[in-house]
Amino acid sequence: MTGCFYGVGVGPGDPELLTLKAVRLIQNADLLCYLSNEAGHSQAKEIARFALDETKRSQQRLPIVIPMSRQRDAANAVYDAASALIAKALDAAQSVVFLCEGDPLFFGSFNYLLERLQGRYRCQVVAGISSLHAAAAALQRPLTQQEQSLVVVSGRHSDAELLQALATHDSVVILKAGQARSRILALLKRSGRFDQGLYLEQIGRPEQRIVGDLAELENKAGPYFSLFVVLKK
Amino acid sequence: MTGCFYGVGVGPGDPELLTLKAVRLIQNADLLCYLSNEAGHSQAKEIARFALDETKRSQQRLPIVIPMSRQRDAANAVYDAASALIAKALDAAQSVVFLCEGDPLFFGSFNYLLERLQGRYRCQVVAGISSLHAAAAALQRPLTQQEQSLVVVSGRHSDAELLQALATHDSVVILKAGQARSRILALLKRSGRFDQGLYLEQIGRPEQRIVGDLAELENKAGPYFSLFVVLKK
Repeated sequence: MTGCFYGVGVGPGDPELLTLKAVRLIQNADLLCYLSNEAGHSQAKEIARFALDETKRSQQRLPIVIPMSRQRDAANAVYDAASALIAKALDAAQSVVFLCEGDPLFFGSFNYLLERLQGRYRCQVVAGISSLHAAAAALQRPLTQQEQSLVVVSGRHSDAELLQALATHDSVVILKAGQARSRILALLKRSGRFDQGLYLEQIGRPEQRIVGDLAELENKAGPYFSLFVVLKK
Repeated sequence: MTGCFYGVGVGPGDPELLTLKAVRLIQNADLLCYLSNEAGHSQAKEIARFALDETKRSQQRLPIVIPMSRQRDAANAVYDAASALIAKALDAAQSVVFLCEGDPLFFGSFNYLLERLQGRYRCQVVAGISSLHAAAAALQRPLTQQEQSLVVVSGRHSDAELLQALATHDSVVILKAGQARSRILALLKRSGRFDQGLYLEQIGRPEQRIVGDLAELENKAGPYFSLFVVLKK
């Protein structure tokens, strides 16, 4: 009997937004994996710190360091190596948890490991609170109601795609808004929905910032983990 | 000092998908509110049952029974009466929790209470796992990756709206698919994305059903809590 590979969402940043299932699986894991930077810092592990502190028995750790370069080859080699180590643990009937910021299957790196192990090993995914729902909770505004529609796009989409999303759907969430902030502000004006826009960064963390009036937002690039929410009034 | 009104998401059905924060607030609540049918059954309360069992001290309960009719007047009168009772508890410095299936601000009834109390009382929202992320976890398929876009529509949208969503976005989730199932199946064929469609009902519950090949799905109405997920291969 081989072990099971779990992708476990730890939510957007508040350690209390881990699910009971996430805590149980983290505490029972034989091998705990997570993305990490070269200095050893892991945002996902940081969010899960209370679950980790309560771990009584020895548990192996596998930090996965993805090269900063945009070249997919280098990243693919790291995922290949990590999935080989995970496969070895699964062959030894170990339980392996990969910690994922937010939700594992909503814009994240988990799928790079999942697609390498799926089919060969038992896999299970534990959903986490995504930035979508964390944003709505922070704003205390419904993301969607009744007959409304919602679209999720990103600052990497073209002007035409963003304008079409804004023209077509009641609720629009624009993720990865850091580099594209100025362009998004201009498009919100062109679409006539500037006054419906709200801006958030670092949701659920001590550095959380919410801007309810976009006229007050600096017209320059911001952090990667920032987003716009556009809601009908 | 008045009390705080909390909208607390309990997730899609699996009691282990409650967050630590949800459990804490439920256990500390002086007044616990939830939607209920006339027979006294509440899906949200059922999902939260383990948190409730551990409640040691006396806690008041407020089941809110919304009339089945589609008339908004009757429902509004019930929300008016419930929010008056909640306001009274808040005036007495009590902590009030309203249990929400899934996420409180993603298609739900919580906003009917929130809009009646917001501004007058302290309010806080605790995000929950929505059916979106529960579906992706059950399917073990990424909802979105990299430059993809996601749209969430419902079986109540028009043919034109559904076809446009299918033509424009990589990932399409169609909620409230019960009554509209036959129409959705026909539209998936027209859009050329029938083979990318997946069907789910009762996610995370013992009755959970996943249909990976839509040719095997009966061409007739299904339960309210059913949805289609259409993902690029």
